[in-house]
Amino acid sequence: MDAIKPYKKGMEYSYTMGAFPTYELIKTRPDLVLHVFVHSSFDKDELEKECHRHNLPMTVNDKMIQKLGNKENIYVIGVFKRFDCELDKSRSHLMLVNPGNMGNLGTILRTAVGFGIKDIAIINPGSDIFNPKVVRSSMGALFRLRFQYFDSFEEYRSIYTKQELFPFMLNATRQLTADQCPKPELFTLIFGNEATGLDDSFLTIGTSVIIPQTEEVDSLNLTIAVGIGLYLFTR
Amino acid sequence: MDAIKPYKKGMEYSYTMGAFPTYELIKTRPDLVLHVFVHSSFDKDELEKECHRHNLPMTVNDKMIQKLGNKENIYVIGVFKRFDCELDKSRSHLMLVNPGNMGNLGTILRTAVGFGIKDIAIINPGSDIFNPKVVRSSMGALFRLRFQYFDSFEEYRSIYTKQELFPFMLNATRQLTADQCPKPELFTLIFGNEATGLDDSFLTIGTSVIIPQTEEVDSLNLTIAVGIGLYLFTR
Repeated sequence: MDAIKPYKKGMEYSYTMGAFPTYELIKTRPDLVLHVFVHSSFDKDELEKECHRHNLPMTVNDKMIQKLGNKENIYVIGVFKRFDCELDKSRSHLMLVNPGNMGNLGTILRTAVGFGIKDIAIINPGSDIFNPKVVRSSMGALFRLRFQYFDSFEEYRSIYTKQELFPFMLNATRQLTADQCPKPELFTLIFGNEATGLDDSFLTIGTSVIIPQTEEVDSLNLTIAVGIGLYLFTR
Repeated sequence: MDAIKPYKKGMEYSYTMGAFPTYELIKTRPDLVLHVFVHSSFDKDELEKECHRHNLPMTVNDKMIQKLGNKENIYVIGVFKRFDCELDKSRSHLMLVNPGNMGNLGTILRTAVGFGIKDIAIINPGSDIFNPKVVRSSMGALFRLRFQYFDSFEEYRSIYTKQELFPFMLNATRQLTADQCPKPELFTLIFGNEATGLDDSFLTIGTSVIIPQTEEVDSLNLTIAVGIGLYLFTR
């Protein structure tokens, strides 16, 4: 495993940074793990047991930690094979159109799993879900969900047809109030890019909704809007 | 104004970074503005008019932008006097106990203003609300609200007595559902630190609540929890 290099998009592997997401990786997807690296100053007994239990290679290697850890205070790194998924046609979905910020994407993945939504559609161009920054801010939630990239909304819709569509838009007509949230059996909540939102073509699909907010802010932060949307639709 | 230095905690002034928060500053609190700096490559006509209207000094100064802009792509900086506030006794409040991340704090300020909550109590130690990183991620919402630092919850409570208290805790007994959210006339929503939450002493004050979430995540992200709490209580 000496050939492990700092992550670049399109590589066959990525890695978790930190003990918590690495435990998540080992617990939920041991089949993906290629190697676990720990720093010599890390108290490794518990992690070693866990690796041993799953028959996973673990090595103390300060140089590797330094090379992959991006100069941050990282003591554990779990290298894993990237994987492909398809969404579950019989479940509700979250769609992100052109998500641009890796920290936001990770936080959104964590939030989705927190509300039991495990199918994430991403419309290109969008942040790379395997980037270690995304994996890290997801706190390992990436390993508990399915995701799929599409080149357009239409491509997604040609495959997944049963979900009712709810684009979140500032110029939507329907206000999303706590006591009058729609209760569809299957839904796809759709959110646009951090800076630009969804374009007006989304006004004509499904039921566009807006989270009521004062006129004193430009808009809610994307992750906040996704959090509130997921909370309401999964009650 | 040549003596303007990069921000340090406790300085008598701070600054907005970027055109959007600088416009917010000028529109909402022109009385605070000491100086506006723009980069020579910035199309300054509109901003110049706005400054002129409020009789505020504006200077093209690339060196100053570089010095204060922290190497980021910043073209406009608004230097402003720091200010003190007291909370409004007759309004609902948001309390943050030991907030540790500046980006989170700014996002929370923006979200609070988005839901009409304009009184923010911060229990020390907590991030410095005047740090330019906070001002920036608040998108200028800082200028639309009141805030006050306290050394303890008890100090806060000795002054503000009328608000019903709702600590958000993972070990709370009451689940916060959309259709059964309490509707107090005045409330204080209380959130702990990103990593440690609130300590158990908060279980005995007011009504502790938890946002229902799956066991597949450690907890919701702080900003997401605050967003959902504010949304529900301000309906």
